[in-house]
Amino acid sequence: MPTPIDIPSPNQVYAIKGVKLGIAQAHIRKPNRNDVLLIELLNNKTTVSGVFTQNLFCAAPVKICKQHLQKTSQNQSIKALLINTGNANAGTGLIGEKNALASCVAVANLLQIKPEQVLPFSTGVILEHLPIDRLIAGLPNAHQNQASWFDAAGAIMTTDTCIKVASKRIEINGEAIHISGISKGAGMIKPNMATMLGFIATDACIEQSMLNQLVKEVADESFNCITVDGDTSTNDSFILIATHETNTQLEENTEYLAIFKQALVEVAQDLAKKIIADGEGATKFITIDVKQAPNKQIAKQVAYAIAHSPLVKTAFFASDPNLGRILAAIGNNGSFIKVEKISMWINQVLVVSNGGLDANYLELDGQKAMKETNITITLDLAQGIEKATVWTCDLSHDYVSINADYRS
Amino acid sequence: MPTPIDIPSPNQVYAIKGVKLGIAQAHIRKPNRNDVLLIELLNNKTTVSGVFTQNLFCAAPVKICKQHLQKTSQNQSIKALLINTGNANAGTGLIGEKNALASCVAVANLLQIKPEQVLPFSTGVILEHLPIDRLIAGLPNAHQNQASWFDAAGAIMTTDTCIKVASKRIEINGEAIHISGISKGAGMIKPNMATMLGFIATDACIEQSMLNQLVKEVADESFNCITVDGDTSTNDSFILIATHETNTQLEENTEYLAIFKQALVEVAQDLAKKIIADGEGATKFITIDVKQAPNKQIAKQVAYAIAHSPLVKTAFFASDPNLGRILAAIGNNGSFIKVEKISMWINQVLVVSNGGLDANYLELDGQKAMKETNITITLDLAQGIEKATVWTCDLSHDYVSINADYRS
Repeated sequence: MPTPIDIPSPNQVYAIKGVKLGIAQAHIRKPNRNDVLLIELLNNKTTVSGVFTQNLFCAAPVKICKQHLQKTSQNQSIKALLINTGNANAGTGLIGEKNALASCVAVANLLQIKPEQVLPFSTGVILEHLPIDRLIAGLPNAHQNQASWFDAAGAIMTTDTCIKVASKRIEINGEAIHISGISKGAGMIKPNMATMLGFIATDACIEQSMLNQLVKEVADESFNCITVDGDTSTNDSFILIATHETNTQLEENTEYLAIFKQALVEVAQDLAKKIIADGEGATKFITIDVKQAPNKQIAKQVAYAIAHSPLVKTAFFASDPNLGRILAAIGNNGSFIKVEKISMWINQVLVVSNGGLDANYLELDGQKAMKETNITITLDLAQGIEKATVWTCDLSHDYVSINADYRS
Repeated sequence: MPTPIDIPSPNQVYAIKGVKLGIAQAHIRKPNRNDVLLIELLNNKTTVSGVFTQNLFCAAPVKICKQHLQKTSQNQSIKALLINTGNANAGTGLIGEKNALASCVAVANLLQIKPEQVLPFSTGVILEHLPIDRLIAGLPNAHQNQASWFDAAGAIMTTDTCIKVASKRIEINGEAIHISGISKGAGMIKPNMATMLGFIATDACIEQSMLNQLVKEVADESFNCITVDGDTSTNDSFILIATHETNTQLEENTEYLAIFKQALVEVAQDLAKKIIADGEGATKFITIDVKQAPNKQIAKQVAYAIAHSPLVKTAFFASDPNLGRILAAIGNNGSFIKVEKISMWINQVLVVSNGGLDANYLELDGQKAMKETNITITLDLAQGIEKATVWTCDLSHDYVSINADYRS
């Protein structure tokens, strides 16, 4: 792990009124570990919105989630989220959908709600059937065994080496508003509208349509800016929950909403960056800042071309300023740019100007910058006003080891 | 290396009349190794055509090559190709172009031809200036030190672990025609119109316009079907030379041309597959066959999505039938396909039918197939008539080691 992931102390993570968390051991894949998380939403006014993977092979629970979110109304709000780790219930066809639905029915029976008020999530191995009986058998425990956000974060881990929790308290209109969230993910990370799994809850009062907009905007500034290995998961889901336990309505185009959104983006970025810091085998945290691009899409494309190049990533692992590999990646971004205008810095070191090796660049300076654990590549394309930031990590021996051993 | 690369015996590799090869040690990057290859074309009728990298940061010699090829005419044919390894002369701006041109001038002086009759090629580290003085000093030796195709293949290697040579003799119209070629490449391999470096010569009689068409078609069926790491090089070049030393004119839409093209494609595929078999750190040779696709582009896109997924590649390295990762990669190919129609085999084992785990699939069978050194993934999309084949390798610890150590 490049930098120790900041795990906040208990008094820095706020409980969210209206959210009850519970965990259980259901032996989905491995014994003696919490692998089920049940999030109960106690307030009928609660609004829930989500964004999901764009992978065509989206998992069965993702399909069910989307259906259930579409059916929500004032009289039928989402009342529970069920998350299991150890099995992704993906590539499992109609049996998979039946199993995901059966888990909703079981939660509904337990909590005396309707199955459509339950959202199911799975993460783990793809192309194996969900052990639905074991999952259902674990539900009463998850209902009874109340848990903290820390416990919740632990119960959804797969190859993660540490829990990912973030929380914030702000004041709006003289009233305290809290935001707390968890995420999981370390490999198969190149979210496309969402991350592997991310859940953020707030006691703020946000109407459904506003929440739908917010979840997309926040994902775009956080989970949609990260990549470990360019593999978009079949199960990516990012869920935003507003329990309406505070009084100030956060409405469109208001200063209140702007303050809240800023805090929410910070929590989401914190959770997203923690996924990169815990990226499989990662030893470096790399920020790629592209500036003065002709448009936003090209800015992001150039940043991702660098972030996905195995040769760039292994050079970072080796602390080797073999920086021509970055140019090769940029030249391979898929869109036309005027490469002769580009300048590039590694941290503060100017390496490239006018698209070629800068005359004053010294290998020693590049070497020193590459030895840092936190490295920023700044690219000035000098052909527009748009920009993008992408966070990624290096490619190490441990990435290969972890992914060669994952199922064993 | 997954399979020992077949190095043909000397009597299986044909000299091409009109082609003179010479090598030298110029100490471009490392001492005591041949790092310069000079190909002299003795017959003024010789036609030469090439395809080059689509990387926007294309190297200086690539730019000069394109210019010189455009200037060829009946009175000014290409007379020499100069190739150095150890330095790519890429990301080097105007100084790089000056150096590439200076190397052509030096060859021209040596052979008493025009600089425009020389094509320069470089391969090696990007973003460092070419040691032009050492290169030029090595030229007289390269001119005198006559070499075989085997020596020539050795003199252009970078991280390659073995030489790549292929040759074929066919009979057309009662006349023997010979085709011989070499290639190099092991990393930064995802050619886009050409491979890292590939040179094929034939004594056949093929006019310029026909040769221009042929070089593109052959590249599309060989070098444009391989990937090691998805990184397109700045220096990719594939050159086809016809010395016109035989009598039968190979003209458009004739049976003779068809026979010749078939042999030429076989030589080019042989050279392309050898690059994959020698892929950096490769322990497996993987063929991805996509069938019944809605169009050719989607067929290739799906094949490459699988071939570029680090998770799929590490699963192959581990011989782990974690085949859901292949589905996730397919679902992430970038174009819409009906995933519920897909069938997938690993060698002879049916794993997926109707887009989900096949009811009769046994993990044991998958495990056995994954342990093979040569693995074919067959994907039947069942939504069209087009197909594509891509050759790739796994992602191993050694890939990381090789690329973390490359410059040291």
